[in-house]
Amino acid sequence: MPFDSKTLDRVFNPKTVVVVGDKKATQYSWLRNMKTVQGRLFSVQVDQNEIPGIEELGVTNYTSLLDVPGPVDYVLVAVPRKVVPIVLSDCVKAKVGGVGIFTSGFAETDDEGKGLQQLIAKMATDAQMPLIGPNCMGLFNPKAGVRHSVDQYHGESGPVAFIGQSGTHTIFFSTTLEAVHGIKLAKSVSFGNAAVMDVSDFIEYFAQDPEVKVIGAYIEGTKNGRRLFETLRKVAARKPVLIWKGGQTDAGARAANSHTGSMASSQAVWDALMRQTGAIRVDSLDEIVDTTAAILKLGELRGPRGALVCMTGGESVVITDTFSKQGLQVPLLSDKSYGELSSFFNVIGGSYKNPLDVSWNFQSTDMANRLLGILDEDANTDFLGLEIFVGSMGRRRERDKDSQGRSFFDAVADFAKGSRKPFFAMVTATSAEKEAVEIRQVLREKGVLAFPSFQRGAIAYRKALDYWTDRPAG
Amino acid sequence: MPFDSKTLDRVFNPKTVVVVGDKKATQYSWLRNMKTVQGRLFSVQVDQNEIPGIEELGVTNYTSLLDVPGPVDYVLVAVPRKVVPIVLSDCVKAKVGGVGIFTSGFAETDDEGKGLQQLIAKMATDAQMPLIGPNCMGLFNPKAGVRHSVDQYHGESGPVAFIGQSGTHTIFFSTTLEAVHGIKLAKSVSFGNAAVMDVSDFIEYFAQDPEVKVIGAYIEGTKNGRRLFETLRKVAARKPVLIWKGGQTDAGARAANSHTGSMASSQAVWDALMRQTGAIRVDSLDEIVDTTAAILKLGELRGPRGALVCMTGGESVVITDTFSKQGLQVPLLSDKSYGELSSFFNVIGGSYKNPLDVSWNFQSTDMANRLLGILDEDANTDFLGLEIFVGSMGRRRERDKDSQGRSFFDAVADFAKGSRKPFFAMVTATSAEKEAVEIRQVLREKGVLAFPSFQRGAIAYRKALDYWTDRPAG
Repeated sequence: MPFDSKTLDRVFNPKTVVVVGDKKATQYSWLRNMKTVQGRLFSVQVDQNEIPGIEELGVTNYTSLLDVPGPVDYVLVAVPRKVVPIVLSDCVKAKVGGVGIFTSGFAETDDEGKGLQQLIAKMATDAQMPLIGPNCMGLFNPKAGVRHSVDQYHGESGPVAFIGQSGTHTIFFSTTLEAVHGIKLAKSVSFGNAAVMDVSDFIEYFAQDPEVKVIGAYIEGTKNGRRLFETLRKVAARKPVLIWKGGQTDAGARAANSHTGSMASSQAVWDALMRQTGAIRVDSLDEIVDTTAAILKLGELRGPRGALVCMTGGESVVITDTFSKQGLQVPLLSDKSYGELSSFFNVIGGSYKNPLDVSWNFQSTDMANRLLGILDEDANTDFLGLEIFVGSMGRRRERDKDSQGRSFFDAVADFAKGSRKPFFAMVTATSAEKEAVEIRQVLREKGVLAFPSFQRGAIAYRKALDYWTDRPAG
Repeated sequence: MPFDSKTLDRVFNPKTVVVVGDKKATQYSWLRNMKTVQGRLFSVQVDQNEIPGIEELGVTNYTSLLDVPGPVDYVLVAVPRKVVPIVLSDCVKAKVGGVGIFTSGFAETDDEGKGLQQLIAKMATDAQMPLIGPNCMGLFNPKAGVRHSVDQYHGESGPVAFIGQSGTHTIFFSTTLEAVHGIKLAKSVSFGNAAVMDVSDFIEYFAQDPEVKVIGAYIEGTKNGRRLFETLRKVAARKPVLIWKGGQTDAGARAANSHTGSMASSQAVWDALMRQTGAIRVDSLDEIVDTTAAILKLGELRGPRGALVCMTGGESVVITDTFSKQGLQVPLLSDKSYGELSSFFNVIGGSYKNPLDVSWNFQSTDMANRLLGILDEDANTDFLGLEIFVGSMGRRRERDKDSQGRSFFDAVADFAKGSRKPFFAMVTATSAEKEAVEIRQVLREKGVLAFPSFQRGAIAYRKALDYWTDRPAG
């Protein structure tokens, strides 16, 4: 059922959070996740054996939700499935803002679970109380300090919302987007079996949230495809919506049914849904994280023609194949660019046709600046991608200062800030995997969008470009 | 031109190596690469300014190749292109075993380069002297200490040969296969413009090398497609040959022409060539490295049906989609397996249908052993893939000993050694990229085949299976 945004604002930005049923066997994980809550945090637990451990965490425990001094905005329920209806009934009485049900064993398992899910859905709907789940991780709001996991950050937030029908993917989206691209979330929600609130409810809510600039979703199924179509058609015209559909294959759909009780529907239907609404299809955690970063960091994209720079001839062939396979182009540069390049570029062991196989021509940071400057002005290309080679080259780069005293990485960062074209780096790791992670970290901290491979760069650019070119009139 | 294997044995296992033309401007990189030569290493350099630096490296320099005390088995030439014919003429006079020409600026650049390439090809052919290149990194033989790069190992060797029309990919194949999967090379050759020796010569040579069990190749083009077809048809029946074709797209083929002067030919022709000969098509460095490891470490593969274990429900959906998209199957397990699993597996928050979404059922190493044991016996599946989750789960695993006192990783390694089914791990990194590299390192050192993602595991298994099922009758 749809809820108005004021109702959802209360639960999505809770001032008082209650965890019901946390226990020692799981290391009081929910209370630990929630220790960062900016407002008030309480526990409800009736088992006397569990209460001392809760109090040791510094959390006040009550034996009934009705004893918690109100108002209560968000309740996370982690009791055995048979007890869930009893807790829900207290939630209704206490007029709480909303409930997330971590407990699993509902429609994704057996007949008893299916019956229980129907019961709690009816209770929440009758009371017009937002119910998230069951079988989910509920809400993440870093500003409010409400988390799914102790691995997540809190305090600062960012411009992205995520809607996940998997707790794992919802947590990983937040931590990976932050680790790989330095981008934080405004909010996310793991919604599991969608007994009451479904993906469309959350898309609508995030569509009107001014903090949210990009919406990502991992979806295994929906009970109301027509509503999702209408919602996406409306929202995708205003904000990018990236959809990662889980259960694209027959066997995958069976796994999704075991996971969230989602019913199979053909991938062709989902493809059509995305195409017709302007939502962007992504197929993995990497793709959704990278595309989100490309949309936010590259700004509006104008075309598919890339100017590419790589370090060797072998890489120049592979980067071209990789970008071409994504439907992007690696065209000849303008005569003006060739005129400038031919005046100094050493083609023995290199090439400047496009890609630039820079080889010895990239030995100094000053020369790198000059080459990037020419490509930025080139009239035949729409974007600029630069390979950064790990290993001996990566090490040398930190030492070699340009005529302005900047290291290679600082010069690249300054170039990225001022470039006319959308610009990104691709750090090729090969055997130096840890060093590659470190170089991407340096670039990320300096504000340069950097991908871990040619393929991830090409896919992210392609999908971000799809957004800018295919989005419906708003 | 084809050479007999005795002629090639001499140059591929050189006892005396000479580097001609190394210089300070490139930090004497060739002499540094070759410092590990097990036999004798000499330099030839006529420039008096360069000689002191060479002698500082402890290498004896001569001003003419003809002064070097013979016999000379392998000469690496790094002089300016115009000087190459002069050096070659000395090589012919000195009856050296073979020559690798690093110098570039031949058929891949201009008319002068094309003419020079024709000239040196004729000189070598007339003298029946194996000539590798030009525009290449020549030979790598770790046992003989002959290297392309100081980043490469030396001393120990392994069961793989690589033939690369790119120095970058040839070096990266060796270092990446070793870093990611702990597998070393017997030999490799970077052959550049293939003025004399072409890919078929090297495939034939490695086919009869008893140390070589798998042959990998990166090819941008060949002058003799018919011969390559006949060679592959003969060799692929006896040894796996993996081919990564560079220049698969129109733009990629243009880049290949700038790189090695290779002429474009349609990817459909190459696909047919591989299909009809039983060579295995791979499309990236990751794919060729991973497939090589899967062939060597998993042994003969029997079928496409996987038993998969992952840590959460969201992962179970994604791993199933990933394997299914590669044409692999994730079927229901046998009744016997289900009978055993149902006796203890907690399905609240998990599932054992296949994939196993183990969740809380994987808390102890003893339980992990039990689950893997059941899947190993399962009659409905041909292989077993295990997700290992980084982060909190990875850390806990090091501490939790089983009833035999083994850590989780030791138990997995013992299982891998004794398993009836081909078994591999997939380490999902998400935000903990460095930790994931470390966990793969632990597994690699314990002899467990481990991939960095579901997709890389699925592709490697698929391509290794293709080898076992599609190879022509030998």
